[in-house]
Amino acid sequence: MLTTSDHLHLRRAPLFAQMPGASVDRLVSAAHAQNLAARSLLFDQGEAAAFLYVILSGRVGLVGRGMRDHEMVVEFFGPGDVFIIPAVTLELPLLMAARVLDDARIVLIPAAHVRDMIARDHAFASAVVRELSRHWRLLVTQIKDLKLRRAPQRLAAHLLSLPRSRSGELHLLEERQLIAQRLGMTPESLSRAFADLKRLGVTARGKHIVIADPAGLERFAAIDGAP
Amino acid sequence: MLTTSDHLHLRRAPLFAQMPGASVDRLVSAAHAQNLAARSLLFDQGEAAAFLYVILSGRVGLVGRGMRDHEMVVEFFGPGDVFIIPAVTLELPLLMAARVLDDARIVLIPAAHVRDMIARDHAFASAVVRELSRHWRLLVTQIKDLKLRRAPQRLAAHLLSLPRSRSGELHLLEERQLIAQRLGMTPESLSRAFADLKRLGVTARGKHIVIADPAGLERFAAIDGAP
Repeated sequence: MLTTSDHLHLRRAPLFAQMPGASVDRLVSAAHAQNLAARSLLFDQGEAAAFLYVILSGRVGLVGRGMRDHEMVVEFFGPGDVFIIPAVTLELPLLMAARVLDDARIVLIPAAHVRDMIARDHAFASAVVRELSRHWRLLVTQIKDLKLRRAPQRLAAHLLSLPRSRSGELHLLEERQLIAQRLGMTPESLSRAFADLKRLGVTARGKHIVIADPAGLERFAAIDGAP
Repeated sequence: MLTTSDHLHLRRAPLFAQMPGASVDRLVSAAHAQNLAARSLLFDQGEAAAFLYVILSGRVGLVGRGMRDHEMVVEFFGPGDVFIIPAVTLELPLLMAARVLDDARIVLIPAAHVRDMIARDHAFASAVVRELSRHWRLLVTQIKDLKLRRAPQRLAAHLLSLPRSRSGELHLLEERQLIAQRLGMTPESLSRAFADLKRLGVTARGKHIVIADPAGLERFAAIDGAP
């Protein structure tokens, strides 16, 4: 069962924010929540999708695995994010594994119940269209990032996407090795990219970053004027 | 207005194949079809989405543009493919331009009508969930391809995805420069990748390709056993 606090957190997820309360209640009637420690494997690449997952707190990495167990992060997810709708709706094998990066509380909704809800509840189906559309644009943005930006520009765009203080301070949310994977580069390329960004006023010490000139960094990272 | 032949082609598109006839009729009641020559620009990056597009024949490239008008193909689309649902549903600026690659006949459905149909027609909303889910998996597969495969493996996977005869012959559907963009490499890297694949039994003359040993090429291209 979900606690009152779980329900409050769920309602903040974009997928549920615009859904009628009765639809959310029906959807989560079959759900349960789990506390999962960092390094837990929620599911593995190639498995069938047993659940739809909603992150209440903590962080999860969706990871693609290649030959000789070579892994790369496809995307990071945090509180309010929902995954993986396509494998649930199409009943196809999962294309990625999901690993907990920071201790997390996660709601699990059985996949068959989700498919049943899409078929029976028009408001939920419409909310899923919007959620998938937002995800789709994240993935297209990442493909443009990988194809159109050099490594230092990709790092600059990533740093600019993180919340920062008025004095330009921010904290990386993941280990550098995982950030390198998400940005499609080797750890060595990430180190070189940080070195390159020094001349643009970016100082880095571990996970602590300061951006001295955000406007200059945005010009450097720009794709067609849009960071 | 759409011709009888247009309707028949439309019904073969995966988005419409499982929809009730009445829903398809309502959706296309506001549509028109256009014959567009190669090199036509359907829409530009940054514009508002005015229409949902369905390709009846021909090919279209979705193109991301970077600084100094540097362009890269994000994805190719052909007969039966529908784009771009996310910009239509979310009313957000288009992330890519769409350029006709081969003379095409395309159905245009006004974006406001599509949004109205998602809100009013549950069967259509469910069909859009499945269509977006399929697209989402294409994009994730591409991101895994870009992050986990080296250039010759990406080319091998691309060649294996094209229809080929029992004798292993196939024809590239696009110009090599565009294929290089889709695969996230320079034209020079594509030439080197073709040279690399010679030792695996791939011979290439212009757009005409022969794969002598498909099983060997599949092993070479494999990500975790799945090409």
